[in-house]
Amino acid sequence: MTTPEPASAPSATLRPARRTAAVTSSAVREILKLTQMPDVISLAGGLPAPESFPVDALREAFDHVLATAGTKALQYSLTEGEPGLRAWIAERETKAGAPTKPEEVLVVASSQQGLDLIAKAFVEPESPTIVESPTYLGALQAFSVFGPTYRLLPTDEGGAIPEALDDIGPGASFMYLTPNFQNPTGRLISAERRAQIADAARRHDFWIVEDDPYGELWYESAPPPSLRAWAPERTIRLCSFSKVLAPGLRLGYITGPSEAIQLLVRLKQATDLQTATLTQLAAVRVFEGGLLERHLPAVRARYASAARVILDALATSMPEGVTWTRPVGGMFVWATLPEGMDAAEILVRSAARKVAFVPGAAFYAADPARNTARMSFVTVPEAKLREGVAILGDVIAGR
Amino acid sequence: MTTPEPASAPSATLRPARRTAAVTSSAVREILKLTQMPDVISLAGGLPAPESFPVDALREAFDHVLATAGTKALQYSLTEGEPGLRAWIAERETKAGAPTKPEEVLVVASSQQGLDLIAKAFVEPESPTIVESPTYLGALQAFSVFGPTYRLLPTDEGGAIPEALDDIGPGASFMYLTPNFQNPTGRLISAERRAQIADAARRHDFWIVEDDPYGELWYESAPPPSLRAWAPERTIRLCSFSKVLAPGLRLGYITGPSEAIQLLVRLKQATDLQTATLTQLAAVRVFEGGLLERHLPAVRARYASAARVILDALATSMPEGVTWTRPVGGMFVWATLPEGMDAAEILVRSAARKVAFVPGAAFYAADPARNTARMSFVTVPEAKLREGVAILGDVIAGR
Repeated sequence: MTTPEPASAPSATLRPARRTAAVTSSAVREILKLTQMPDVISLAGGLPAPESFPVDALREAFDHVLATAGTKALQYSLTEGEPGLRAWIAERETKAGAPTKPEEVLVVASSQQGLDLIAKAFVEPESPTIVESPTYLGALQAFSVFGPTYRLLPTDEGGAIPEALDDIGPGASFMYLTPNFQNPTGRLISAERRAQIADAARRHDFWIVEDDPYGELWYESAPPPSLRAWAPERTIRLCSFSKVLAPGLRLGYITGPSEAIQLLVRLKQATDLQTATLTQLAAVRVFEGGLLERHLPAVRARYASAARVILDALATSMPEGVTWTRPVGGMFVWATLPEGMDAAEILVRSAARKVAFVPGAAFYAADPARNTARMSFVTVPEAKLREGVAILGDVIAGR
Repeated sequence: MTTPEPASAPSATLRPARRTAAVTSSAVREILKLTQMPDVISLAGGLPAPESFPVDALREAFDHVLATAGTKALQYSLTEGEPGLRAWIAERETKAGAPTKPEEVLVVASSQQGLDLIAKAFVEPESPTIVESPTYLGALQAFSVFGPTYRLLPTDEGGAIPEALDDIGPGASFMYLTPNFQNPTGRLISAERRAQIADAARRHDFWIVEDDPYGELWYESAPPPSLRAWAPERTIRLCSFSKVLAPGLRLGYITGPSEAIQLLVRLKQATDLQTATLTQLAAVRVFEGGLLERHLPAVRARYASAARVILDALATSMPEGVTWTRPVGGMFVWATLPEGMDAAEILVRSAARKVAFVPGAAFYAADPARNTARMSFVTVPEAKLREGVAILGDVIAGR
């Protein structure tokens, strides 16, 4: 039989590795798909505002790079990242209070990839891993593939509560946290708590994985320095250009002690060899042209304005018994509905009235608070934000 | 202590996951780093010829996409890939003899990423995995992170020997092979053998992972169809745009039964969310403009010419006892040195005379033939190719 069969056949039996059971589609995700229709007011997305993308600057940068260094930009390059970009990142990190050398930087294709590499590097099956409760869903997805045992760090209005680390810290491999304007809660961890977290990490000898995709999106004043400023010897820091440039580029970076970076570099080589050369060179072009200095103030003002609108709408429209965070940066508000209420059921009813949000349960590694909800407010026009929150208030009030 | 310490400190003790032991730097890699200096004639690279990159077409495409669909190109998109690119890929695959629907396509950031996703999806610790002997080093790196037990499929001048699958096929999870112009050997597997491999896979109920980064780089005639043409229900096919467009873009794709694709999509979501939107839209633009039809003939002619030069140089310069493959496509020649000779020692001596290649041992999952060598011939000018092969002949002959 040297002539192939003409048509495709049904799949043979798949025998997925056990780890794949950790990444399943959820019922909530299915509901959210239904709410992606154009007439739905969606507070469910985690997308940055497309009006904030520096399209013209990136267009000039890609064109310039392809015109002046085309074959270099299209060829393979170093797994670690383009030297010019690593140097720029190191300088920016240092200025922001976390002294960083270029060899302490690894360029990655999004901070989600950074999470995957860190999980590959440090998560053994059942290795004790500390996460905030709630925490970023994408981190749970990346880590869970490698089968850790989660230890839950309680949080309050100030984010992670450091004192609890004396109970759950001993024997832990690392602690994952999002100190700035956390996804999903929007909360900011104070300098005092950062210092306490660094102390606890040193005392109990665990590492810190700091995820910081939103740190540049402050409204009034910059957040405290990176955990790397307090515990440079044991902090691995993840950053993304998705929110300050654009997510469609897939560009981010990791900083940390060079031994940790070298380990991650070897794993990245086996994972995708390197991040796109062209994209890195275009990023260097826009950064060296001072884009961020010109561009970020407008993004911050836009997001601050949207935050004021949703906070005002929540105050106007939410029935008694509902509380919410007051973010001072980022893209998210986190609401707590009355005790006993299930946000997933609220979503089913609000979706029927064309308003969507994300029930909070998905953001817990265990013991979900089902009466919580994440609302994203930066992609919805202000009038629609008010309308959506009003409808949500009605649904929660049973009106 | 709310004021951070000023300077970075040495790293705390790293406790890498056990799987990371599979990805170590080798002594050979260190030697090869030394040979990347400009005056070295390197037959060691796996890089495509930069003169073959369609710089102008890509420049036009990136500019067009950013000018006409900038915010879309810079925003998040689907994990599966851009619909337009999936449709184009499905049509091209179907025309090439492997009927494919768009939902049977997943766009990935390089076929190395495809290997990582496949390993995540299907490699359990100690799961029996069949690989050609020798096979692609990058696949061994991607798989080994997940700890399979390799079963070695012997090869001859015609590539993988199907008969051996009756011994090692039963109980195997999948077989990984590169049927077209394999890295490292340059060998092509015939239609007859493909049919036999598909039969064996069905008989012993294992899957086929077909890696095909070089299939478009034929010199005189196209290779036989994909294994998906013979065993569509159990073949997962990996392709790259690195050799037909440019590697610096990081773009490739996977095709297979939609159940397998859906599993890989969920894993990709946890790995990096998606491949760059902008890059995918630029690729659609150049493909729909007919770039490959205009561009590939020139790439093929260039590579065919380089192959003639190195084969001629080998015939002229190699001492008795050295044999080599005669590739009819791709970028690699595989040489077998006299029995008992260690190619790694030859490399040390040839590097001192400014000629580099890759010792073949790295391409074996086990039982390496140390008297083998991979030579890449598409990035070295013809005169330098002749000179390099002549020096190598002298070194092997002990001159």
